[in-house]
Amino acid sequence: MSQPSIDALYDGVIAADRSAMGRAITLVESVNPEHRNRAQELLTRLLPHATSSHRVGITGVPGVGKSTFIDELGTRLTATGSRVAVLAVDPTSTRTGGSILGDKTRMARLGVDPNAFIRPSPTAGTLGGVSRRTRETATVVEAAGYDTVLIETVGVGQSETVVAEMVDFFLVLMLPGAGDELQGIKKGVLELADLIAVNKADGDNQTAARHAAADYSAAIRLLQPASPTWTPRVLMCSGIHGTGIDDLWSAVLEHRAAMNASGELADKRGEQRVRWMWATVEDRITTDLRSDPSTAETIAGLELAVRDNVTTATAGADQLVACFRSGAR
Amino acid sequence: MSQPSIDALYDGVIAADRSAMGRAITLVESVNPEHRNRAQELLTRLLPHATSSHRVGITGVPGVGKSTFIDELGTRLTATGSRVAVLAVDPTSTRTGGSILGDKTRMARLGVDPNAFIRPSPTAGTLGGVSRRTRETATVVEAAGYDTVLIETVGVGQSETVVAEMVDFFLVLMLPGAGDELQGIKKGVLELADLIAVNKADGDNQTAARHAAADYSAAIRLLQPASPTWTPRVLMCSGIHGTGIDDLWSAVLEHRAAMNASGELADKRGEQRVRWMWATVEDRITTDLRSDPSTAETIAGLELAVRDNVTTATAGADQLVACFRSGAR
Repeated sequence: MSQPSIDALYDGVIAADRSAMGRAITLVESVNPEHRNRAQELLTRLLPHATSSHRVGITGVPGVGKSTFIDELGTRLTATGSRVAVLAVDPTSTRTGGSILGDKTRMARLGVDPNAFIRPSPTAGTLGGVSRRTRETATVVEAAGYDTVLIETVGVGQSETVVAEMVDFFLVLMLPGAGDELQGIKKGVLELADLIAVNKADGDNQTAARHAAADYSAAIRLLQPASPTWTPRVLMCSGIHGTGIDDLWSAVLEHRAAMNASGELADKRGEQRVRWMWATVEDRITTDLRSDPSTAETIAGLELAVRDNVTTATAGADQLVACFRSGAR
Repeated sequence: MSQPSIDALYDGVIAADRSAMGRAITLVESVNPEHRNRAQELLTRLLPHATSSHRVGITGVPGVGKSTFIDELGTRLTATGSRVAVLAVDPTSTRTGGSILGDKTRMARLGVDPNAFIRPSPTAGTLGGVSRRTRETATVVEAAGYDTVLIETVGVGQSETVVAEMVDFFLVLMLPGAGDELQGIKKGVLELADLIAVNKADGDNQTAARHAAADYSAAIRLLQPASPTWTPRVLMCSGIHGTGIDDLWSAVLEHRAAMNASGELADKRGEQRVRWMWATVEDRITTDLRSDPSTAETIAGLELAVRDNVTTATAGADQLVACFRSGAR
């Protein structure tokens, strides 16, 4: 593709020009090293403008009704003057090549809302790579003046943890009928939730939804809240009927006000960024090592030796670090 | 200290000579680089002998009665012909300089049991360093013929996760009176548990213990089991009265048999080792970077810039990786 100048992209993004935003995000998503450097130059210039958006993570198993819920919530937010961006972290998209999240066609109203911007998950790379690009895409839309960024993910691998690490508030959507063994909750997701919403609490589901809500309330009552100023809650809602959505968002705003007042929000964001930098260092080094053809054989051999207990993990790690120091590329 | 030869240490450990084991573990725990290399040489020789011990992780908040419980459990195991080693991962010991775990004086019978070997937590280094040394100490005691290794930890930081990553079975001890807001469960610990035991289920506590057990049962019922062949359970016991201990250990053995039959145990151990090698690579690189005086200023500056959103985490990570490549020591 033709290479728009960083100045042009910068001006376009600041002016909230959709095609410039699209090109900027494509640049950010590129795995081409030269693009990568230009992307970092652009992002560094955009950072001062990318302030104080409200980042909310939303997760739930396929079928929980994420798209309908986000379409309803987002439309209500834009109706009250917010500018809403919907991004996605979808580890499955890196395998299938197509993201099942952030799909405009599944958000009928938001997809055509002038005050909404929807971007599907990058469809290549490791979960670490996908989440890096989603974080950086958030910077682009924030610089373009989007004040609410909804980041959706599906309960696969470590995706919830990754999203929880880049948002102010983490919302977990659940289906009615929780006690049911068939609906297992992924490891750790309860601990990440600032709010659990039992969706599809409508029609014949209402009794099951009440039972599910009671079960989740009992479960989170046993967990240590992550913040002294916020105790996670359980609510019921229906994305398709629009019930419970306003109460849910009020809770999100209440959380934000409390975290702002205590100063925890600013600290949380700063710490998220620093942890992210270190995670990137580790991710980069591991990725570089794994992607270097000259070390592939060494790595395979060491993994086998360590797996079979012929070599200690420490001795194996020493050799890998030496490989890297000697300039793995 | 005088430097015993690796041969002498090797022979002594294989012969289960306590003083040789002690010296070998001291060598493994040393942070002196030259000792570190000798330790790896010794460990590599010991590995073939360090087979098929049963590693059980035990966690619980201070006051839950870990030492009394382990003293009772361990004494029953040695009475049935087992040789039991008790190790500890205690992140607090790295700050206080003294471990509150693995203290012989708090295990009155096991501390003088000829078939038991107790080693407190290393009292220096990062949690990653402490856990490395505990893993390698486990190799030493296993090579000395200890067939059961109990690794205790206290619910601080990430210590449970670290211990769960080095054991076959993870036991969580809880106090009666769970619903009580005052007893929060640390993030994620429920997910790690293969078994939750409500300890001190004796005397006036029995009703509270039953309620706690019911609450925990309800909570774990909502979690996805980590293994298809094992559903975590909740039991009650009393370390001081010795009640429930035999049932508890039967469940541990049942778990081991099931995981052996399915082949999951061997896979789990192999995967733990490989993950540990990569975690060590990342830990080593981060530690080297942080401990290198020549990069300290760069790191502090980058952390500040990233925290304040002046630099992107990715750009900061690039500079850190470059620092490391250029030979941080």
